[in-house]
Amino acid sequence: MIGNDIHNFAKQLWPINRSITGEGVRTTLDHIKQHLPDLEIKSIPSGTEVFDWTVPKEWHVSEAFIITPNGEKICDFKVNNLHLIGYSTSFDGNIKLEELKKHLYTLPEQPGAIPYITSYYKERWGFCLSQNQFDQLEDGEYYVKIEAKHFDGALNYGELIIPGKSLEEVFLSTYICHPSMANNELSGPTVVTFLAKWLSELSERRYTYRIVFIPETIGSIAYLSQNYKEMKEKIISGFNVSCVGDDRAYSYLPSRNGNTLSDHIAKHVLRYIAPNFKSYTWLDRGSDERQYCAPGIDLPIASIMRTKYGMYPEYHTSLDDLDNVVTPSGLDGGYWSIRKAIEAIERNRKYCITVLGEPQMGKRGLYPTLSTKKPVEQVRLTMNLLSLCDGKNTLLKIAETLDTPIWNLYELVDKLVENKLLVADERLI
Amino acid sequence: MIGNDIHNFAKQLWPINRSITGEGVRTTLDHIKQHLPDLEIKSIPSGTEVFDWTVPKEWHVSEAFIITPNGEKICDFKVNNLHLIGYSTSFDGNIKLEELKKHLYTLPEQPGAIPYITSYYKERWGFCLSQNQFDQLEDGEYYVKIEAKHFDGALNYGELIIPGKSLEEVFLSTYICHPSMANNELSGPTVVTFLAKWLSELSERRYTYRIVFIPETIGSIAYLSQNYKEMKEKIISGFNVSCVGDDRAYSYLPSRNGNTLSDHIAKHVLRYIAPNFKSYTWLDRGSDERQYCAPGIDLPIASIMRTKYGMYPEYHTSLDDLDNVVTPSGLDGGYWSIRKAIEAIERNRKYCITVLGEPQMGKRGLYPTLSTKKPVEQVRLTMNLLSLCDGKNTLLKIAETLDTPIWNLYELVDKLVENKLLVADERLI
Amino acid sequence: MIGNDIHNFAKQLWPINRSITGEGVRTTLDHIKQHLPDLEIKSIPSGTEVFDWTVPKEWHVSEAFIITPNGEKICDFKVNNLHLIGYSTSFDGNIKLEELKKHLYTLPEQPGAIPYITSYYKERWGFCLSQNQFDQLEDGEYYVKIEAKHFDGALNYGELIIPGKSLEEVFLSTYICHPSMANNELSGPTVVTFLAKWLSELSERRYTYRIVFIPETIGSIAYLSQNYKEMKEKIISGFNVSCVGDDRAYSYLPSRNGNTLSDHIAKHVLRYIAPNFKSYTWLDRGSDERQYCAPGIDLPIASIMRTKYGMYPEYHTSLDDLDNVVTPSGLDGGYWSIRKAIEAIERNRKYCITVLGEPQMGKRGLYPTLSTKKPVEQVRLTMNLLSLCDGKNTLLKIAETLDTPIWNLYELVDKLVENKLLVADERLI
Repeated sequence: MIGNDIHNFAKQLWPINRSITGEGVRTTLDHIKQHLPDLEIKSIPSGTEVFDWTVPKEWHVSEAFIITPNGEKICDFKVNNLHLIGYSTSFDGNIKLEELKKHLYTLPEQPGAIPYITSYYKERWGFCLSQNQFDQLEDGEYYVKIEAKHFDGALNYGELIIPGKSLEEVFLSTYICHPSMANNELSGPTVVTFLAKWLSELSERRYTYRIVFIPETIGSIAYLSQNYKEMKEKIISGFNVSCVGDDRAYSYLPSRNGNTLSDHIAKHVLRYIAPNFKSYTWLDRGSDERQYCAPGIDLPIASIMRTKYGMYPEYHTSLDDLDNVVTPSGLDGGYWSIRKAIEAIERNRKYCITVLGEPQMGKRGLYPTLSTKKPVEQVRLTMNLLSLCDGKNTLLKIAETLDTPIWNLYELVDKLVENKLLVADERLI
Repeated sequence: MIGNDIHNFAKQLWPINRSITGEGVRTTLDHIKQHLPDLEIKSIPSGTEVFDWTVPKEWHVSEAFIITPNGEKICDFKVNNLHLIGYSTSFDGNIKLEELKKHLYTLPEQPGAIPYITSYYKERWGFCLSQNQFDQLEDGEYYVKIEAKHFDGALNYGELIIPGKSLEEVFLSTYICHPSMANNELSGPTVVTFLAKWLSELSERRYTYRIVFIPETIGSIAYLSQNYKEMKEKIISGFNVSCVGDDRAYSYLPSRNGNTLSDHIAKHVLRYIAPNFKSYTWLDRGSDERQYCAPGIDLPIASIMRTKYGMYPEYHTSLDDLDNVVTPSGLDGGYWSIRKAIEAIERNRKYCITVLGEPQMGKRGLYPTLSTKKPVEQVRLTMNLLSLCDGKNTLLKIAETLDTPIWNLYELVDKLVENKLLVADERLI
Repeated sequence: MIGNDIHNFAKQLWPINRSITGEGVRTTLDHIKQHLPDLEIKSIPSGTEVFDWTVPKEWHVSEAFIITPNGEKICDFKVNNLHLIGYSTSFDGNIKLEELKKHLYTLPEQPGAIPYITSYYKERWGFCLSQNQFDQLEDGEYYVKIEAKHFDGALNYGELIIPGKSLEEVFLSTYICHPSMANNELSGPTVVTFLAKWLSELSERRYTYRIVFIPETIGSIAYLSQNYKEMKEKIISGFNVSCVGDDRAYSYLPSRNGNTLSDHIAKHVLRYIAPNFKSYTWLDRGSDERQYCAPGIDLPIASIMRTKYGMYPEYHTSLDDLDNVVTPSGLDGGYWSIRKAIEAIERNRKYCITVLGEPQMGKRGLYPTLSTKKPVEQVRLTMNLLSLCDGKNTLLKIAETLDTPIWNLYELVDKLVENKLLVADERLI
């Protein structure tokens, strides 16, 4: 089960302190590059204007902790990188509990969880801790130490182009800006790493694959600002990959358009691998499809997920881990749902029958010679498939008409093409 | 509550004997003109050919009553103008009860009600009375007196054009041919009078408003025969206003096309102000939409009503009054449902976001600076709205996608236009 | 009831041994020609290439039977032509029961029925018998005699062209290749014979009718291969007529397109004559629509049936008879459902009202002169119909909008055309 390999890879990446910029991003990309040697690690300087945004300064944390009046060290960034709010400024000094509390963030309704909080675009400092720990803090003077730098550096991302027969592209995007959390989000980059590996090792691909590992929001905006014209010309389908590691659900979130190839493929795959999959609307979105599908960008990007961000209790807390939330089988399901979608895109063509009227299947050994009362199931499927291959229906459409997963037709179509009863339209869809 | 003003106005108009022509129509229009000084009172001579019809002679009644064998005066037109059938011819003479009964009309199933009956296009005389009164008539000789004139005069109507920035028009039509009845029909002309007042007093309007007070059927046919080419060019939406005064229901009746802006707006408004509103079909029609939507005319005219003609027990009887049927709050609801529809037409535009990708809301003070687990409702609405402003969706369509009344978006859209994040398409819809 | 005449005709045709070729086909066509003198009986030589197929040799059986060890003659082709499998080769010799059984076919689940089995395209010999008879066969040596010839001859079919005002055609196809069975299939050719008689006797027809009596599959393929270009140009609607003789159900099977005039008409007719009719999909097909609707052929051919082939227990067995399965009333229903469909095609036009606005019905005597509270049903229907005659709606569409069978409108439309309130669009639909 490939889910085990993905889970092991996620464990390697777990302790790294990722944010939208910085050393953690680069270290993570280096690990991914070990699996994908052709991955290019790129950088955009701080201060670069990207659409309505500006690439922020880099953030580097040397250390961050609090010493209690009893001399105990708590909220140590080295123990759990969620303790420090993302992009926190520096602080060094003694402070009364009452004042300190203005800089402490907890989740009262989940008293055992450390929340994940960031403040990328406004300067502030602060710590996150569990409500349980917060409740035990005694009055008195605390020593707070945050040594963090904000400096002109770069925003980094990884880009991998895997060439296919056509210049038309399928796009996969995932993000590498979340610190130590598992479903949201080590599942995305680890699953995409193994999907990219599989794609790279195929003997041939109809489509070219554009795969990016970026920081969320600012990363997709920056990437789009440099590539969107080319992307609009080339990309015919794609997925934003996030929250693909737990075992509790399968989910679909549409593109803004809602009617693209990616949407149809995603719903088809999920209908057959998880008939009770959860279907969200565009109004439920929350990841980089916000940028990829924005007005004027309008890429055909949908999402296939396990349990969606925001819809599980451990979301954006220290409880979103690789033990209880993300599992090998959860990652395996995430991997295969997207792989089946990609395979369907590769196999989705228009076929045309080569004869007028029904073919004489008997002379080709494809039909029972004795006509009796009971039709044979495989014969019916073959004749139904042939009757729908009019050069206009896609294989996806045919599968839906036949109410069968598209992957059930691959072998049959190949046999009929071999027998010269079908020809594929060479044009892409 | 404007419903009180409308109700008071209806009381003023109540006693006037209206018909499709005559002094009552002119008096009614004079009263309306006191509220709308720019109203033009027009006339079309009797005998004028209008499409398939001919403008009828004017009808004037001096007096009409019956004297019973006991010398009692009954069915006196001066007491209730419903007693005389509309367009009744003259009669003067003594007549046996048996013969008289051929000229008496009652509603056996509503024994206390005087029915409303007309005979515009065939000469006859007759009286209407309650079944209760009818049952008490004793045998004997009755003296009948009807002094009525049919003469070459004119058909009158009122027309008000309220100019807007565009020459394109919104059309309101209501009718002033019904004698003393309230929902059908003093509610229409009184509500339209107050809508026209409000429109006249606006500092500006995107659209020009064409508002007519006409006799039903022959009036709309006559008006169309003189104006339909111009109307087809200019009118982009409109409503036939009838039965907008009681408190029991809200109703929608579609245009013949069923898919015009008027239909979409009417259903949207009613869905939010009265989720259980009654939806009729074109086959249930019965007022001037029959002419406005006729083949070859095809104007986009729908109806927003309270309880529809024919669907309440007091309809077309003396029981349709200003006490038990039509109320200030009923009229208020009728007024506001149509006003909200007009406001929606004025505000319904296509907007386009001015940046590619999501805007950086933080730097504009439109976004919380701290990213936590819980999204903020207003922020979600804003981002959803922006994501749908692609220059193709109308504001009405966006409101329906967001499942919110369009009027909830006016202020937000104005703020985003001020912040230069949205621009309106100057073209009309 | 015309069903009686059809049933009598079916009884005449019952004993003839039909197959896809041979004397039985020609005899059957001769009987049909007695009703339809203009029927042309055509032939295509064995060996002719027709699309992907080859016209097979003719098959002629002189005799076929088995003599049991007791000297009893069983499975005698002369007693029931289902005993011999279709296109059986010759055999003459003694054979042990064990060996004989490899050539015997039964239906264990229907022990009293002789199955109908054919082997057109692979040489084999065999007999069909009831399971009950099979179970009584004793060990020993059997004498088997089959005297059958396969020789270069012809495939025969009947074609009737009934001219109409237009060269555009309505197509009826039915098949004459089944031996002694009733619903599938003596019902088709007998019902079509009587439909063709009715059509021939009409004083005029808008459309030309192309009617064929052919062997199933190979016959439709052969006919198409010689005529499909002309057929694609001319045929605007049509039906494959099969299984129209029992009394248990009405059924609809769509064309491949599913959205043709034939489909709309078939569903409309069935909705009103049998609201609970059974609706099948293209995937349930099984007769000559497989060829007529094949990709590249794409004729607008649907099916109106009683109980569909394969969906009743007696199907393709000796139990499908003229006593228990097919009845005069069953055939009557089959006849009238298709006749009503053809009438609807003939009457389905676009009408346009000749006046703008509603017409003044009163002056034409088409409207009550007294306006009271209650509308009159026929008046409403008339006004509704007129309001929909905009030159764009077909009469079929109007009937569906009015939720009434199209045949309820024929007389009313004729009256309005006479009164010059409607004009028909002369173009065909």
